Amino acid sequence: MMGPAGIRTLTEPQDMAAYLQGVRGEVGRSPVVFLPETTDQVADCVRHCGQAGRPFVAQSGNTGLVGASVPDDVGDTAVLSLSRLRETFELDLANRSLRVSAGFRLSEVNDRLAEHGLFFPIDLGSDPMIGGMVATNTGGGRFLRYGDVRRNTLGLTVVLDDGVVLRLGSSVRKDNTGPDWKHLHIGSSGWFGTITEAILNLEPVVAEQATALVIPSSDEAMLTLLRHLETRAGPLLSAFEFMSRAAMGHAFRHAASLKNPFPRGEIPETALLVELSRPTRAPWDTPLQDVLEAVLAEAWDIADAPVADAFFGRPQEIWALRHALSEGVKAAGPLIAFDLGFTRDKVIAFRAAMTGLLGQNFPMVEICDFGHLGDGGLHFNLVKRDGPLDDEFERSLRDCVMDQAVRAFGGSFSAEHGIGPKNDRYFRMFGQQSTDLLEQSMRAVQRRHL
Amino acid sequence: MMGPAGIRTLTEPQDMAAYLQGVRGEVGRSPVVFLPETTDQVADCVRHCGQAGRPFVAQSGNTGLVGASVPDDVGDTAVLSLSRLRETFELDLANRSLRVSAGFRLSEVNDRLAEHGLFFPIDLGSDPMIGGMVATNTGGGRFLRYGDVRRNTLGLTVVLDDGVVLRLGSSVRKDNTGPDWKHLHIGSSGWFGTITEAILNLEPVVAEQATALVIPSSDEAMLTLLRHLETRAGPLLSAFEFMSRAAMGHAFRHAASLKNPFPRGEIPETALLVELSRPTRAPWDTPLQDVLEAVLAEAWDIADAPVADAFFGRPQEIWALRHALSEGVKAAGPLIAFDLGFTRDKVIAFRAAMTGLLGQNFPMVEICDFGHLGDGGLHFNLVKRDGPLDDEFERSLRDCVMDQAVRAFGGSFSAEHGIGPKNDRYFRMFGQQSTDLLEQSMRAVQRRHL
Repeated sequence: MMGPAGIRTLTEPQDMAAYLQGVRGEVGRSPVVFLPETTDQVADCVRHCGQAGRPFVAQSGNTGLVGASVPDDVGDTAVLSLSRLRETFELDLANRSLRVSAGFRLSEVNDRLAEHGLFFPIDLGSDPMIGGMVATNTGGGRFLRYGDVRRNTLGLTVVLDDGVVLRLGSSVRKDNTGPDWKHLHIGSSGWFGTITEAILNLEPVVAEQATALVIPSSDEAMLTLLRHLETRAGPLLSAFEFMSRAAMGHAFRHAASLKNPFPRGEIPETALLVELSRPTRAPWDTPLQDVLEAVLAEAWDIADAPVADAFFGRPQEIWALRHALSEGVKAAGPLIAFDLGFTRDKVIAFRAAMTGLLGQNFPMVEICDFGHLGDGGLHFNLVKRDGPLDDEFERSLRDCVMDQAVRAFGGSFSAEHGIGPKNDRYFRMFGQQSTDLLEQSMRAVQRRHL
Repeated sequence: MMGPAGIRTLTEPQDMAAYLQGVRGEVGRSPVVFLPETTDQVADCVRHCGQAGRPFVAQSGNTGLVGASVPDDVGDTAVLSLSRLRETFELDLANRSLRVSAGFRLSEVNDRLAEHGLFFPIDLGSDPMIGGMVATNTGGGRFLRYGDVRRNTLGLTVVLDDGVVLRLGSSVRKDNTGPDWKHLHIGSSGWFGTITEAILNLEPVVAEQATALVIPSSDEAMLTLLRHLETRAGPLLSAFEFMSRAAMGHAFRHAASLKNPFPRGEIPETALLVELSRPTRAPWDTPLQDVLEAVLAEAWDIADAPVADAFFGRPQEIWALRHALSEGVKAAGPLIAFDLGFTRDKVIAFRAAMTGLLGQNFPMVEICDFGHLGDGGLHFNLVKRDGPLDDEFERSLRDCVMDQAVRAFGGSFSAEHGIGPKNDRYFRMFGQQSTDLLEQSMRAVQRRHL
């Protein structure tokens, strides 16, 4: 028997295929896919793998971008799919919280919550499952307003690699009676266990939003504008996204139906997507569209005059451009993608430095970047213009970018995609600190334990 | 020599006195107080204590309410005061973050930040230092809007008990390249190390606020009103505080200058302090006072009609009542205080149950409670009306309340005050889970480490 009793198991190649292929094209090999339906069945699978000496990889929505959700090509690693783990969906309306199994997709969670006027406020281009979202601590486009998964997680159920089930935290928001162990697992890419259930904080759904495309007067002006918006629009500000001309150009070329909102279709060097939103539109509220226009009009008069131009439009049309960037860049040619994080001022400085450095050393590469300037996240995408990538070129280019991002600009080499085979080289290069911290932290815990 | 070279040391009783007395009247004994001025000096002190086999207690602002910042009365424990640890105060304006030493008081941090239009958004009745705030993960009166210390901490410097200095996290907001070890230390009451520095998230200062005292039509109506406010005032809502008649009565009796805002001075059974605020008052904004009046007027018409009456007034006057509750209750007689946390609906249910239970079994005790209903925090204060407390009475009363709070209502026995001698009994009673989690988590980390 390939697995523990009573658990659905796939072993035929055609049945397993979907579980072995990742979204970045990677394909692994595996003898078996387990499809447990409860936390206890996950524990059975984990124990079974332990006893059999079989490595396993946990997979929920399989939308991850670092190759962490599929097995390698050696062929001995089992897939522990959490996609049928749907035993729990318990809404606590008064507490604005939801206890939910790892196998629910984000879109399904929010569809079910809509009738109650609530949602899980992580806004992503993809549609992952809750388990993977917790494991990678995704942020997304409205981090500025709602924070990341960590900030919106009240409790977790985790199956450790020896099959022990831990229930960490609870629906109680204020509880400081010892270390908050759930944080060991959030954003750790499954290092210490498999997440089977989470208790999530919910927020009132957005009922009104206003969006503009803003052309900054200079690179430096972008942060001036951000601070102006944070002060004048305050808690209404929900997105401040940066898009480069190259990324927008590829999006328009790739998505024919996409509306080009710029005069004569001339794409600016940089555009910022600015959004205000709120959960209501009350009779006493100035319409958000008017507020946004007024805040941006003020910005003409402040020091540095950060706004060169601004275009208003229906939120779904403007977001359609933002959401088309990824596919557009992917279609433009061989892609070398980075998910970087910086302090907010370093985003601009890093881009400027890389424009020079890559122009000199990798002139055949085009920078097609975009990102979440409001929280320092930068999807630094490079497209090779002159034909296919070879491994050596890709590695030397990646090494150059990562060295600058981490060593020269103090950034993160994985802002919101977590750790996996695709960035393992950089984890080994820059993650020494992680290993030291693990050892030191373990000793500190041991001392306390003795 | 009582300590490592170059570190200021106190050994005379009159010099040490202030460091040995806690705010709840507890007085400890100690052979020495160390006053290090840098993280390295803290590490020297910790190593010195380790080599000498001397226990130590870290103390920053010494405002804690669970006795954790002063030594016990055995007399062999050193005090490691962080009050002179002021080497770092580095503001990053563009990033809205501050790197600051543990020895700065909250009020001083905010005074220094005011000229830049920023503040550290934890609102407390007391004035602790940053080190203790991180160690206890304080929440306070605006948790509903800004969250707790954990949510606003980007990085930490921690000295482990073997003198190793760890720098955890950084000013980068998005970084998921391994476990986020700083969370092992936030809210852990110093279990694993001494916090010497933190990198804090800052928010734009509040420029406009509007406040009302609302009389709910019933206990159940309070949550209906809260949900109405969260939907209609959305991100403007910054406080939803609950005050009982008994607590308000003692505040008015104790603080003669306090204005009684109620008609004919008749204190209602319950009052809610509702606050809206924002970092700006722009020309296009409806004044917040009008917004608050309109939102509350709407509440007359919704199901359950949650509002019986509402009184508006200047924010500082209304907050003066809220802030006078603690002192008023303290002055009313022997006090047995609890800092409890629940899911939001359980706060009401717990109070109702306790009113019955205490009335039956402890009729000489008056419930004078208040708290943060928006996040489930309840300062459940009991005053003994018939003379002094004896230990046995206090213990049986505490046991009764804690058993109900934790076992019957799934609450936390320390919502925001952390763990110390004053609640150690309940940590041992209900914290078994913590010890198990520590052991299991340590094993999980070890497995990964091997």
